[in-house]
Amino acid sequence: MSSRSLRLRGFKDYLPQEMFLRRHIVETLQEVFESYGFEPLATPALERETVLLGYGEEASKQIYRFEDPDGVRVGLRYDLTVPLCRFVLSHPDLVLPFRRYQVQSVWRYDKPDPGRFREFLQFDIDTVGAASVAADGETIAAMAEALRRLKVPFRIRFSNRKILNGLIRYAGIATELAHSVFRVIDKLERIGLERVLKQLGEGYVDDSGARIEGLQLEAAQIEKIEHFLSLGGGKREKVLSALAELLNGIAEAEEGIEELREVSAVLSALDVEGEEAAVDPTIARGLDYYTGVVYEAQVVGGERFGSVMGGGRYDG
Amino acid sequence: MSSRSLRLRGFKDYLPQEMFLRRHIVETLQEVFESYGFEPLATPALERETVLLGYGEEASKQIYRFEDPDGVRVGLRYDLTVPLCRFVLSHPDLVLPFRRYQVQSVWRYDKPDPGRFREFLQFDIDTVGAASVAADGETIAAMAEALRRLKVPFRIRFSNRKILNGLIRYAGIATELAHSVFRVIDKLERIGLERVLKQLGEGYVDDSGARIEGLQLEAAQIEKIEHFLSLGGGKREKVLSALAELLNGIAEAEEGIEELREVSAVLSALDVEGEEAAVDPTIARGLDYYTGVVYEAQVVGGERFGSVMGGGRYDG
Repeated sequence: MSSRSLRLRGFKDYLPQEMFLRRHIVETLQEVFESYGFEPLATPALERETVLLGYGEEASKQIYRFEDPDGVRVGLRYDLTVPLCRFVLSHPDLVLPFRRYQVQSVWRYDKPDPGRFREFLQFDIDTVGAASVAADGETIAAMAEALRRLKVPFRIRFSNRKILNGLIRYAGIATELAHSVFRVIDKLERIGLERVLKQLGEGYVDDSGARIEGLQLEAAQIEKIEHFLSLGGGKREKVLSALAELLNGIAEAEEGIEELREVSAVLSALDVEGEEAAVDPTIARGLDYYTGVVYEAQVVGGERFGSVMGGGRYDG
Repeated sequence: MSSRSLRLRGFKDYLPQEMFLRRHIVETLQEVFESYGFEPLATPALERETVLLGYGEEASKQIYRFEDPDGVRVGLRYDLTVPLCRFVLSHPDLVLPFRRYQVQSVWRYDKPDPGRFREFLQFDIDTVGAASVAADGETIAAMAEALRRLKVPFRIRFSNRKILNGLIRYAGIATELAHSVFRVIDKLERIGLERVLKQLGEGYVDDSGARIEGLQLEAAQIEKIEHFLSLGGGKREKVLSALAELLNGIAEAEEGIEELREVSAVLSALDVEGEEAAVDPTIARGLDYYTGVVYEAQVVGGERFGSVMGGGRYDG
């Protein structure tokens, strides 16, 4: 074995210069988030496999899983959201609302790419419990301030899981199909509108010649989803009004929109305008966990790397 | 499964108060070590199993090992020393001497105990390459300053691997037995002198009734080792003079003692006296890696937790 191949493929050593940069980023984020009342948390690298399998089938394939010497099936954490849920369940005496940030490595068995590694640092911000949604506005404002201080061009998108649930009602889709529909919508940025619509219907053949199965929704249902998907991108008030009009009469969606109006008002009061933080009803962020407001930040020009920061509200 | 048992046995969540304390410790150590010219490094959590098996048989049993989805045998790092060796081999263009510190988690499949976890943070300081041994004196002084600033009562012990090699010559022990002898000596603090001497000879029966095999050394050889083991504990100059007398004429040992005299002079110049940093010829620290000066720090009253900081010189 040559000395260069001693290191595992897809993994990386961080040399001093990179470590100083990484520390600068981490310290900036810590400082800003703590000034907004978030507290640090760390959870173990290893969790029970039963806990980690909550991610769904696709993610499960990317989890480093094995049997430990006790004969317990375990895995390396895939993100910081599922460990947070496990943490909350393991600490029934936790005082809610619990606002935490977490900066730790996660592991994903993924195709290694330049700039894409199998171990990388995640920074997560979440609120657990029943605080006012104004807190979500403050979180998004803190994310904006942190990214401003780091001098990276960024764009935050936020939404509310209640709106996606409302869409299912609006389009008359069977509840058992909801998650599959969300999973397809979640791919919008990656695969584009045309393929999303095809996958909602009859499916398509991708570039590698593989057949992607469709969900076989009716044309009228797909049309309603298409309309919904077209609503993002403008001023926050405009998007929210359009959503309110579209999902008029669906109680859960109306509640979600009302919460987003409150978030938007907090953002405006804290001088975070639409160019920095926009309503995007298509984002889902971890399909099974969040119950309310969700948000994620991207670096402008670096969208292909996915979100650099994200979080949301979980009301247990 | 009850919600409390969701977390894996032997692992721990770090709540905000513990995180603030941990950060204070890490930041203090970073600041002191950087002021002494050490630079931060981070290596992957996963390494090839072939790399990790360099720890020897006993440690190998405690390594979390498995086959990754590529079919490669991998494991979670057991300490930060072997990853450093792998790092140096993977970066043949590295400018030497390389002085690095590393603060990362390590994983050991160990009997969980209160205060003893299967994942814990290690802080390691090492010098790789051919710098003067004065650098080792500075490192020990930096460790002393860091621990003083943290206001914990501490004791640093240091030695030189060349002295242990000299002992093998002095006692007339076959080279192929050297590592087994070091392994037994390394247990001195844990099992006590009497059992060490028995294990060097005919072996003994431990508290659980298990038979511990002895190395079957001759009585005269064991007597020489016993004398050697009795030399630590006094003033640095006194210990070094006694070692010089005992190992007189063994070139490698004389070289090691001379290096320790230089280290001791640097320590005295930096106001680190014998109560803080003592010569202890019995410490080995990672039996297969270090080639020169080695050192480790313990918290006074917390010796059973092992060393809280350690390092040494590796001249490739």
